[in-house]
Order: sequence, then structure tokens, then C-alpha cells
Amino acid sequence: MKRLLSGMRPTGSLHLGHLVGALENWIKLQEKFNCYYMIADWHALMSEYENPKSLEKNSIEMLADWISCGIDPDKSTIFVQSHVKEHLELDIILSCITPLALLERNPTYKEQLREMKGRNLMTYGFLGYPVLQAADILIYRASVVPVGIDQAAHLELTRELVRKFNNLYGNTFPEPETMLTKASKLLGFDNKKMSKSLNNFIALSDKPEVVKKKVMKMITDPKKIHLDDKGHPDVCNVRSYYNIFNASESEEITRLCREGERGCIKCKERLSEIILEKTEPIRKKRTALLGDKERLLGILKDGNAKARQAALETMKEVRKKIGVFHDL
Amino acid sequence: MKRLLSGMRPTGSLHLGHLVGALENWIKLQEKFNCYYMIADWHALMSEYENPKSLEKNSIEMLADWISCGIDPDKSTIFVQSHVKEHLELDIILSCITPLALLERNPTYKEQLREMKGRNLMTYGFLGYPVLQAADILIYRASVVPVGIDQAAHLELTRELVRKFNNLYGNTFPEPETMLTKASKLLGFDNKKMSKSLNNFIALSDKPEVVKKKVMKMITDPKKIHLDDKGHPDVCNVRSYYNIFNASESEEITRLCREGERGCIKCKERLSEIILEKTEPIRKKRTALLGDKERLLGILKDGNAKARQAALETMKEVRKKIGVFHDL
Repeated sequence: MKRLLSGMRPTGSLHLGHLVGALENWIKLQEKFNCYYMIADWHALMSEYENPKSLEKNSIEMLADWISCGIDPDKSTIFVQSHVKEHLELDIILSCITPLALLERNPTYKEQLREMKGRNLMTYGFLGYPVLQAADILIYRASVVPVGIDQAAHLELTRELVRKFNNLYGNTFPEPETMLTKASKLLGFDNKKMSKSLNNFIALSDKPEVVKKKVMKMITDPKKIHLDDKGHPDVCNVRSYYNIFNASESEEITRLCREGERGCIKCKERLSEIILEKTEPIRKKRTALLGDKERLLGILKDGNAKARQAALETMKEVRKKIGVFHDL
Repeated sequence: MKRLLSGMRPTGSLHLGHLVGALENWIKLQEKFNCYYMIADWHALMSEYENPKSLEKNSIEMLADWISCGIDPDKSTIFVQSHVKEHLELDIILSCITPLALLERNPTYKEQLREMKGRNLMTYGFLGYPVLQAADILIYRASVVPVGIDQAAHLELTRELVRKFNNLYGNTFPEPETMLTKASKLLGFDNKKMSKSLNNFIALSDKPEVVKKKVMKMITDPKKIHLDDKGHPDVCNVRSYYNIFNASESEEITRLCREGERGCIKCKERLSEIILEKTEPIRKKRTALLGDKERLLGILKDGNAKARQAALETMKEVRKKIGVFHDL
């Protein structure tokens, strides 16, 4: 089975966007690939360094989210980036062969600097984000990497580094394929892009009453004021959620809305139910898991050990090819 | 005893300049400090990445040079940078808090780029050289760092990172003191700066006939052509060597030269003897050591283990303060 690598930064609660945009895909990929799913705490530190206190807590909660959603530690290797020290070894080796200009010109870098303004990210570490990402992938010789379109440029850099490395030191790494994943189409309940800083998302950990409250705040068609006004479902965020979470009902409510036969409140109440049908089992599993820290830590220990073994094999070959010590 | 850190990059044969400029000082420092002497192979890789094949061989030879000169593994901790993985952990943490501008403006950086032209050093890794250097020092909480004047700016950066780290995460590291060491005044036998690429040095491993040959090539006072010409010892490279290797004889030969009573050949023959008195015991010890690889590797194993223990202690505290996992 081909190896696949993906990861998330433990920067806070996972939400519906993560479930629909990444995790449901990850769950399917488990059947087809040898998956490595990484808790990217070094990457989180790069943007959160001014206030990183909850990295460890967030990592544990993210792990609980993953498993509750269906990531299976028996099928996939789940591990913490900072606990497989070989990532940093390959990172520094790749750093030595990475032209500065390649990083400075990286379009994703510039965009991220714009997006995260307010934080001081003009740091050496943040510039090197894609180099560490390349190390994350190559240390497992992953040949498949699912990424959103916004990360595609980073992966291009990984491929460039593979070619350069193989050229300098002999054939060692495969060029990983990009597996483009559809970005989640879910907007926040305020119709803006779902984002941690806007706090406009439904978290996987939200209790039913919180979910209901958030759904009731959602913006529908602003021109539909009374129940029997004819609505424009194409501009309605609630309808988008139906499309994603219950496509079969979506057709019917779209028709009713257009004909002025169904009000927004009813639509939202039903959407709450639909979302809760999906999230309540996750939340309950999550709560149970978080009550059993030993089990969670055990999963990470096992995953770290498995990841480390694969990483060590790669580094053994890399050190040999480069000529730095490999058996002291 | 205060901790002291210093290191050398294993990029090739050590020579008289290293002996006089660094090692003799290191030997004395062993009595006053708890010394950590580092074989800086990651740093070597930064400049040698295009052709690093002999890093491991060079490291072993450098170790033999150090010990032959008098670095005592019972007094000092001798270790390989790439074998204490915590260096890279602290390196990435410091990277996250290092403003890019601080590195780009670093005067040493610009100078090194100029000096090493011919090699492509416009890499991400090379820009981060002083961050790794800061990690090397701080991972041992070394409070004393002997550096040449050309490295003083790097150490200033270390101090700046200490202040920033302590500010963000609480008091953790001491600000290391700079211990300025006199640069070696030895020129190469062609009167140019001693340098690997010019191959104008007397190596610690040079056999007696090679030493003699190199000394005979040395440039003296170009105006003194015949034995009884009055010489100008102040411009004579051979006299500089006397000053350093046998100051007591220097006075006498200076007088004789000025008076036209001593020829350059005689001066050089005697200098050969003086240098060989110094280097022959070193070379012999070196040869013996290199014949006993087990012993050399044993020294590194012990040193690595000692260094690792100190580094782990620091990282335990650092991980706790920052909030990344520390006990999985």
C-alpha cells in the first residue's frame, strides 16, 4: 500500500468544516493507503509562538476529535510531530539545500502573512514552514499527500527539493503526488469564511443547545422576511448546509422555499436535528475518550513508536548518503 | 564550575592556526570551566552540502587532532552535534521567535557570503546558522563562549534570543558572556591568510619532510637576498612564526638578521626543528589514535551520552514552559 501523509495543527477546537473538508476524506483514505496522520505541533508553534500554552491540551483534544470521527489507530499511524525527532533532522538537511528565493517567492507564504496579520510572522521559522512540511512528507517517503488548493505550491516545493536531493546525493525519495481535496464549502454561521478568530463555527464539541443556538443565528435569504415570502435558496447558507449534511432533503426544502411554503425557522430547526444526528455520536465518543486520558496517550505512544521506526529507517539511509554519522 | 561551549566544523585537516588560535586556549579552559567541545557537523553541512561525503571521516580526524593536542575527554565533554538531537528541537523553537530581519542584517552573514563565494550559500539553512549556534549554546545553558571577533555578532544574536525567550516563556536561559579570543596571527606560508582553499598551511598531520618543505617555501624579507644582507625581520613571516613558537630565540635571530649575520635558510631550518618539536608528538599520538578507531568512537559515545543528558534536562524544562508534549 502506498504511504500517505496528512496532518493538522493543534490550534483549537475542530469544527464542522474540518469534518466535512478533511476528516471524512481521511476516513475513506484509510482503506486505500498506509496513512500517517500527524499532530503538527511544531507547525502550530510557528504561528502560535506568542501564546502557545495550550498546544498540549489542544493536541489531546484534536486526537479525541479524530478518533471520534472515525480515524482508526489500528489502521492509521497517528503521531505527534515533535515526538519523532527525525523530522527535524531531515528538516535541517533540506534547509541546507533550499534556496532562500524559493521560500520568499512562495505565493502561499505571502498570502498567509496577509491572512494572519496581527501576529508577527516575519520570523525565520515561519519562512521555513514549507521546508519542514517537505521533511514531514519525505521522512515517511509518503507518495500521496492530500492537500487543499492553497497548499499546492508547498507541495511543488517538496517535489523540487526531492529532485535536488536525489541529484546531489543519489536517488532516495519519491516525488509525492498531490491529491487535490475539495475545500469545504461550509461558511461560518455569519456567512463569512469559517475561522477560529471569528469564532463563527459549530465545533465538534459543542453541546446540543449550543448547536441549536448557532444554527438559529444563521443567515438565510435576507429578502425572505415572512414565512410565505418566496425565498432564494441559492443565497441561503442554511440550504448549503442541507446540501452537505442531507442532500436528499435539500431538494424538497429548496422547492418549498421557492414557493413560499416553508419558513426559515422551520428550516433551521430541522437543520439542527440533522447536524446533531451527525455530531452527537461524535461528541459522546469524544467526551468518553477525554475521560480516558490513558487510552489517548497510549494511542499516541504506539503511533509515535511506529512513526519513529519508519523515520529512523529513512534517516539511516539519508545519513549514510550524506556522510554525517549514523550509528553512534 | 561555569559551563563553556565551543566547537569546530569538521571541514578538513586542522593546522597550526587551529592549534595556536583555538586549541591551546581550549586546553587551558578545561581547568577553569565545565567545557563542552562540539564537532559541528550540521554547521559543516551548511557550507559543504554540495559535497559533504567526508564529513564523518573529517569528524573522526578532528577528534584525533583535538585529543592529540591535549583536549582531555575525562575533563571535557566532546560530542557530535548531530548526535544530540535536542539541538534541533531548541533550534526550531528559537527559529519561531527569531525575526527574519535580525538574520538578514547580521554583518557576519554578509561577510561570510562574500568570503565563500563560488559556493551557493543563499540557502535557508545558511541564513539560520546563528540560530542553530544559539541553540548549541543554550541547550547546555553555557554561560561562557570563547569566540573570535568575527563571531561576536552571532553571540549578540544569541543574547537577544535569550531575552526574547525569557520574556515570552519565563526565565529559562542565562545570557552567555562573550570571551573574546585573540585571532591567530599565523599567516600561511605564502603570506596570505591561512585557508583551506589556498592549501597554504602546515597541517597537524603533515609528516616531517612535508613540514620542512613547506617551511622552506616560506617568504622572508624580499630585500634580503644574500646571507650578509641586512634583513628586516618585521616583514618576515618566518620571524612571526618564531615569535609564536619560540619567543625566546626570536630576540636573538632578530638581532642577527638585522646585522646581516644570519641567512634565511638557516632561520628556516631551525624553524622546521622548532615546529617539529611541537607537532611531532601530536602527529604520533594522532596516528596511534587513528589506528584505534574503537577508542575514538568510544570517546564520542561517552561524550554524546553526557551531552545528551544535559540537553534533555534543558529541553524538559523548555517543552514544559512552551506547552509542547514532553513525556511521550
